[in-house]
Amino acid sequence: MLTVIHNVLDKTEVAQFRAHLDKQAWQDGNQTAGGLAKQVKNNQQLADEQSEVAVSLGNHLLRILGNHPQFTAAALPEKIYPPRFNRYQKGETYGLHVDGAMMVIPNTNISLRSDLSATLFLTEPDEYEGGELSIALEFGTQEIKLAAGDMVVYPSSSLHQVKPIQSGVRTCAFFWVQSMVQRQEQRSLLYDLDQTIQTLTKSKVGQKELTKLSGVYYNLLRQWAQN
Amino acid sequence: MLTVIHNVLDKTEVAQFRAHLDKQAWQDGNQTAGGLAKQVKNNQQLADEQSEVAVSLGNHLLRILGNHPQFTAAALPEKIYPPRFNRYQKGETYGLHVDGAMMVIPNTNISLRSDLSATLFLTEPDEYEGGELSIALEFGTQEIKLAAGDMVVYPSSSLHQVKPIQSGVRTCAFFWVQSMVQRQEQRSLLYDLDQTIQTLTKSKVGQKELTKLSGVYYNLLRQWAQN
Amino acid sequence: MLTVIHNVLDKTEVAQFRAHLDKQAWQDGNQTAGGLAKQVKNNQQLADEQSEVAVSLGNHLLRILGNHPQFTAAALPEKIYPPRFNRYQKGETYGLHVDGAMMVIPNTNISLRSDLSATLFLTEPDEYEGGELSIALEFGTQEIKLAAGDMVVYPSSSLHQVKPIQSGVRTCAFFWVQSMVQRQEQRSLLYDLDQTIQTLTKSKVGQKELTKLSGVYYNLLRQWAQN
Amino acid sequence: MLTVIHNVLDKTEVAQFRAHLDKQAWQDGNQTAGGLAKQVKNNQQLADEQSEVAVSLGNHLLRILGNHPQFTAAALPEKIYPPRFNRYQKGETYGLHVDGAMMVIPNTNISLRSDLSATLFLTEPDEYEGGELSIALEFGTQEIKLAAGDMVVYPSSSLHQVKPIQSGVRTCAFFWVQSMVQRQEQRSLLYDLDQTIQTLTKSKVGQKELTKLSGVYYNLLRQWAQN
Amino acid sequence: MLTVIHNVLDKTEVAQFRAHLDKQAWQDGNQTAGGLAKQVKNNQQLADEQSEVAVSLGNHLLRILGNHPQFTAAALPEKIYPPRFNRYQKGETYGLHVDGAMMVIPNTNISLRSDLSATLFLTEPDEYEGGELSIALEFGTQEIKLAAGDMVVYPSSSLHQVKPIQSGVRTCAFFWVQSMVQRQEQRSLLYDLDQTIQTLTKSKVGQKELTKLSGVYYNLLRQWAQN
Amino acid sequence: MLTVIHNVLDKTEVAQFRAHLDKQAWQDGNQTAGGLAKQVKNNQQLADEQSEVAVSLGNHLLRILGNHPQFTAAALPEKIYPPRFNRYQKGETYGLHVDGAMMVIPNTNISLRSDLSATLFLTEPDEYEGGELSIALEFGTQEIKLAAGDMVVYPSSSLHQVKPIQSGVRTCAFFWVQSMVQRQEQRSLLYDLDQTIQTLTKSKVGQKELTKLSGVYYNLLRQWAQN
Repeated sequence: MLTVIHNVLDKTEVAQFRAHLDKQAWQDGNQTAGGLAKQVKNNQQLADEQSEVAVSLGNHLLRILGNHPQFTAAALPEKIYPPRFNRYQKGETYGLHVDGAMMVIPNTNISLRSDLSATLFLTEPDEYEGGELSIALEFGTQEIKLAAGDMVVYPSSSLHQVKPIQSGVRTCAFFWVQSMVQRQEQRSLLYDLDQTIQTLTKSKVGQKELTKLSGVYYNLLRQWAQN
Repeated sequence: MLTVIHNVLDKTEVAQFRAHLDKQAWQDGNQTAGGLAKQVKNNQQLADEQSEVAVSLGNHLLRILGNHPQFTAAALPEKIYPPRFNRYQKGETYGLHVDGAMMVIPNTNISLRSDLSATLFLTEPDEYEGGELSIALEFGTQEIKLAAGDMVVYPSSSLHQVKPIQSGVRTCAFFWVQSMVQRQEQRSLLYDLDQTIQTLTKSKVGQKELTKLSGVYYNLLRQWAQN
Repeated sequence: MLTVIHNVLDKTEVAQFRAHLDKQAWQDGNQTAGGLAKQVKNNQQLADEQSEVAVSLGNHLLRILGNHPQFTAAALPEKIYPPRFNRYQKGETYGLHVDGAMMVIPNTNISLRSDLSATLFLTEPDEYEGGELSIALEFGTQEIKLAAGDMVVYPSSSLHQVKPIQSGVRTCAFFWVQSMVQRQEQRSLLYDLDQTIQTLTKSKVGQKELTKLSGVYYNLLRQWAQN
Repeated sequence: MLTVIHNVLDKTEVAQFRAHLDKQAWQDGNQTAGGLAKQVKNNQQLADEQSEVAVSLGNHLLRILGNHPQFTAAALPEKIYPPRFNRYQKGETYGLHVDGAMMVIPNTNISLRSDLSATLFLTEPDEYEGGELSIALEFGTQEIKLAAGDMVVYPSSSLHQVKPIQSGVRTCAFFWVQSMVQRQEQRSLLYDLDQTIQTLTKSKVGQKELTKLSGVYYNLLRQWAQN
Repeated sequence: MLTVIHNVLDKTEVAQFRAHLDKQAWQDGNQTAGGLAKQVKNNQQLADEQSEVAVSLGNHLLRILGNHPQFTAAALPEKIYPPRFNRYQKGETYGLHVDGAMMVIPNTNISLRSDLSATLFLTEPDEYEGGELSIALEFGTQEIKLAAGDMVVYPSSSLHQVKPIQSGVRTCAFFWVQSMVQRQEQRSLLYDLDQTIQTLTKSKVGQKELTKLSGVYYNLLRQWAQN
Repeated sequence: MLTVIHNVLDKTEVAQFRAHLDKQAWQDGNQTAGGLAKQVKNNQQLADEQSEVAVSLGNHLLRILGNHPQFTAAALPEKIYPPRFNRYQKGETYGLHVDGAMMVIPNTNISLRSDLSATLFLTEPDEYEGGELSIALEFGTQEIKLAAGDMVVYPSSSLHQVKPIQSGVRTCAFFWVQSMVQRQEQRSLLYDLDQTIQTLTKSKVGQKELTKLSGVYYNLLRQWAQN
């Protein structure tokens, strides 16, 4: 799945996020990189990721996601890693990598399996050159650069990179999702079934058929959800 | 699995539950129904499901279930949704449906997969006409109407309904169970093996064979438990 | 699943089967029983199960099953054991047992996993007393005694028996099926989806929704078929 | 996976295939379509798909595929449906559909699960207008139109179509593959590991590490192959 | 897996553990045994397993394990049961058994599936006769008796025993691990891949190949982790 | 599993096998090795592996295996690769390797997944120095050198080697097995349950308990057999 969701934040919210983030102190993201990431990660992150401002912005975004039908239907989220923020300036990049599989949510002992990765853009495409999120998919490579407030959700298992910035600044929020349903092909199938049921509901199909199809949906989810 | 468990509550406890519940305020259950349920749900539920009385009755029931060998062996519970209460009066009904697959336990961020549904009857069969819990099983449909204090546990994946009440009142507790073992055929097999080991234990079979069979039981549970 | 299929053979075919079988030599079925079956099997089978007549009747039945939509949709057959015949007379019975899991088709090196068992009745219920096929299912026990030409298909994993004959003769064909889909709950779900798609096809739902639902059906079958 | 394999047939072989096929009789492909396909299939197929010429061309292609490293590494074929041929002329098309999941290989009782679909182009792109193979993938839709002799392999589970021909003739061979490994994400992972081992073999890594990596490859394949 | 890890505690820490534990009150371990264990368990455990000293020693050990690369790579721990302590004196033993599959961590409602069992020795082998930890593995039986501070990790599914003590005292810590990856053969494969990647990292293999292999590792873990 | 089976062939049969094999022409086994095996395989194999003598000896062994209860219970064979023969003389060896996962049975299009590898010794241990079959198992390495007529069955997934011969000749038969049950831990569990049922059958446990346990065995096999 590679899903683009538009207007997760509206332009006013984007401006507020930017105003807050621009006042924060930023540090070299390579300092906290481990293993192979040390060799490819060259960007900036908040000096204090647990500051009141950072946590508050993250929570605001979590509340929006919790009520977002398209995000919910596509990702079937079980757990969401608290959103974090990064920034790329001229010459900065994050080379080719696959996201780590298991993470511990900071200040808890809750672990999270990264099924999906998400990047929410907080700068407009014309504010910087380069900086495409480049994701190796089945047929060639997809390059993503979205309007501020838009978000892309993609498989954490894909080989991806952020290409070098030629000029300007690129600021984003990012997080990971553990889905109730681990396998992508099963999430896709549930998504198709969900969309079809919603269309049929509007088209006045008999209540009995809708009940049966909705039973199929719930029973597939029940069979596949690992919780 | 469709398991009837008798005397989960004795008649004194039933009377206490009823005395407490009858004093509570009830409201239209359709108000809180979502999606397809809106069209088929026509019953009453407590106006305040988090009241001290409601929570206390639920906890009392949870303590009983926690020490109930038959319930434990059949359901292998991993999580139990806090018991809730509903009431049907003349003309009320809950039409054919399959229970939703994933729920969030109120006031927590703990999600629960509904593998099994349970209904505990708090009114005697002769207190109301109609109101059978009708469950579509493999061969025809099973209609359930139990003595007060008795409970039925059945697969949440089944298509089921509460038939319209002709007269009287039907009061029940109900809840859902996420089992350690997701698949019904695996729970059945573990249940058969457990029962056989208990019978053999009494019949003075050699210690070595019991150790081996008990190892088979534990290792199957280990392989199947998703925890 | 416990499925009754009516009129697999019409009355003329039943009469032909009976005429042929009654002329064959029968022998004690216990002679070929192995393991635990030796202690519970007390019936008759054809003295020569590979005779031209026996094979020809079996093949006739296989051709009918191959074109039978209800049987195909419910069983999703991958392999069918060549049908065989048995006979019970006064005092004969087949005690409680579970069918063996793996079989080799005679005169081949093809193995078959028995997912489903089938019994086709060749005598009318009033031709014999007793002789019910008794199958332990989830809620109590189901007793089956069908009209000649009717067939029951049930899970080979169930504990079942043929009750003692009090009088008369009970002649049946029986066979096993390895399904493309091993798990019963998955076959049931596919069956529900198939039935719903067929109903919607008649009710003039949009082509696009039918295409999507049919894609869901095929992709579930593809994911589950072990072939 | 969506894999394009170039030069499966060289231009001489393509010419031979075309010379043979153009002499054959063709008929309306809709005649043999079943179910939903009846409403969307509008093309031509050989009047006699079991003719000596048709079988011989199919076998020639099978021999090439059997020795083709890229095809073998990507598809891990367990069974291949004997290649068939189709033709589209002005106005013809094959509307949106998902390929059926289970097929029986003609004149055998061998069934095949369609994991992958393949189309080998026998006409050059400039010989016809329209006629793109359009495949709905994760991010937008991919339109495929290859040089004669080239082949595309794609998931049978995808929603795909052949767009209407505006002019000219489009002739192709097509077939399905049941893979040793049913799930796409597992085949992809094995493919990545295989490619990495081959690169490391050339780069003079120690024999011990190659032995270990090759053990990982074989043991993953062993664990995933359903055979 | 049967992994011996040396020097989990150094000799100073061992002495501190022993000094603390020897001052505690011990009681008959059979008092808390349930089921079949009642007949084979004959050892001593702390009279107060939740005492400040006992909890503090357990936490000290947990901190060490949390930073131990060999333990982490081999066990891939998801949850660890708080370490406990036992003691065997002359004539005491723990007969053949398989560890129970599901446990609740004391004073929580967190359940843990015992994938791996661990015994950390706190007495030197020459301090007691007998007392071997005897584990039935695939080829004959393995007898384990380690230096103080060393630890063995073995599958909880194995049939194992502590042989009778002839003289002296044997004091140990023990605990269980629920792994992120339930199946032993999958953990072994990940361990082999991890070791190979680490060796290749030192041997200056190209960055691209390391990125690919590390992607294979993460994506296998992602696929297998049940979390 | 690492299972040694004694006296698969008796000494007379061994002598006959040897007499036949010693008369055959042998060639360098490296000639037919592919991939990594080319670098580690240094032994001899029959110049004509499809000769009448070679096939006849292989079939003789297959008949014995087909009726061998210990082999059948441990391996649960679904397919067996026709036995082949190899010979090692001074300096010859087969270096560390993991057996390939998928094979095609010669002169057929039947593929076989190698779950288990088997070596049947045709020379006595004192006829040669070195030549141990060395298998890396969970705890250290197992070295196998058996009497003529004895056989070892071990997981094809293990890293193994034949150590260099110092003097004499080592002649063996070898083959691979695809099991009905792919996972070793499931085969082990079925084996334990089978052995326990057989012991209980002799000890006059009630028929009902035996029927239930045998039902558990068959239903586990049914659930796990991929056929």
